[in-house]
Amino acid sequence: MKKPSRDTISRMALYLRALQELSKARTSPTISSQDLAKELNISSDQLRRDLWYFGQFGRRGVGYSIESLKSKISQILGLNRSWNVCICGVGNLGSALLAYKGFKEHSLNIVAAFDVDPRKIYKKKSGIMIYPLGDMKKIVRSRAIEIAIIATPTAGALLILNKLVSCKVKAILNFAPVKLTAPPSVKLRNVDLSTELFNLTHFLSHGVR
Amino acid sequence: MKKPSRDTISRMALYLRALQELSKARTSPTISSQDLAKELNISSDQLRRDLWYFGQFGRRGVGYSIESLKSKISQILGLNRSWNVCICGVGNLGSALLAYKGFKEHSLNIVAAFDVDPRKIYKKKSGIMIYPLGDMKKIVRSRAIEIAIIATPTAGALLILNKLVSCKVKAILNFAPVKLTAPPSVKLRNVDLSTELFNLTHFLSHGVR
Repeated sequence: MKKPSRDTISRMALYLRALQELSKARTSPTISSQDLAKELNISSDQLRRDLWYFGQFGRRGVGYSIESLKSKISQILGLNRSWNVCICGVGNLGSALLAYKGFKEHSLNIVAAFDVDPRKIYKKKSGIMIYPLGDMKKIVRSRAIEIAIIATPTAGALLILNKLVSCKVKAILNFAPVKLTAPPSVKLRNVDLSTELFNLTHFLSHGVR
Repeated sequence: MKKPSRDTISRMALYLRALQELSKARTSPTISSQDLAKELNISSDQLRRDLWYFGQFGRRGVGYSIESLKSKISQILGLNRSWNVCICGVGNLGSALLAYKGFKEHSLNIVAAFDVDPRKIYKKKSGIMIYPLGDMKKIVRSRAIEIAIIATPTAGALLILNKLVSCKVKAILNFAPVKLTAPPSVKLRNVDLSTELFNLTHFLSHGVR
């Protein structure tokens, strides 16, 4: 398999979502790349280029089998198995992520949360127990947590990052508004919530797309 | 100007953030495309290709002027002016967005919030007044709101969308976990918080990037 770009992977997630909807709708077992591209509001060239990274799926004149493309993309995205995830920081954003329904659909199981506030610890929120940082090593091991989400304010983010690294979490998604860097053993991704808005401001300024 | 892809625009946002940090650090007034690409963890080819969309900025052997590239990208992203934004739905996610420091840095001013809960309305949160839906038309007009963020549960999202469209908001960012579609007069973008995690699960499954 060739090495796909980050953007290709992000588009794969969109393809998967669309295929899941098509699968639920059960209108047809197949879809042409043109129709799938139209559904996704991207060019069919782009779609074909992305899918080529992972080998040929479609058959000329028949199109893609929705079920097999769905299962192939799931596999590419690593969603053919489940992942245990923890949320660090149960403020507004952490609470929103705990309540977010979209993760479970994709085999992303939030199994624990962590916070420093004594009023929050050892209580449940959205059905998930909140633990103090001192329990992190034990809980990460016992719940087989591989992915962590940092949802703390800027001030606490670095402390949490170091703690997660020492607990041997494999991948971290950082929502704190500070750019973190992790050692090479850990995959880290910084999310900037403003970025999504820039597509809109660009559009409103220049009237394109 | 050629029409850049959504992904190009998203990368522009990353470039801008890196340039802002370089500008604050004040180590040098210029940066080579190689160094900027390294800073961003992308290929310098990709960087040059993106910047070519908007014309040539750098000078061979000298590199890019940090300040002029920063101001050019700001202009491309429509951030050379300020934008008034409202948040619809003041639950956990809406509250997190109201408190989020990153918007203001980019001239995105949250000026109002809306909610249906009588216990929340006409109170301030993070300094922002929360209004009932009945006030939306008046507030959108008086505060010159052009961009709205939907942060409601799935159930309320469609109602809010229709209300925003009738209030002539120009662009909408939807965080509710449901795919919304707007009439062509309104630019709408659906955000899926799971997508960010898929880059991590892909990496953990295949060990690439």
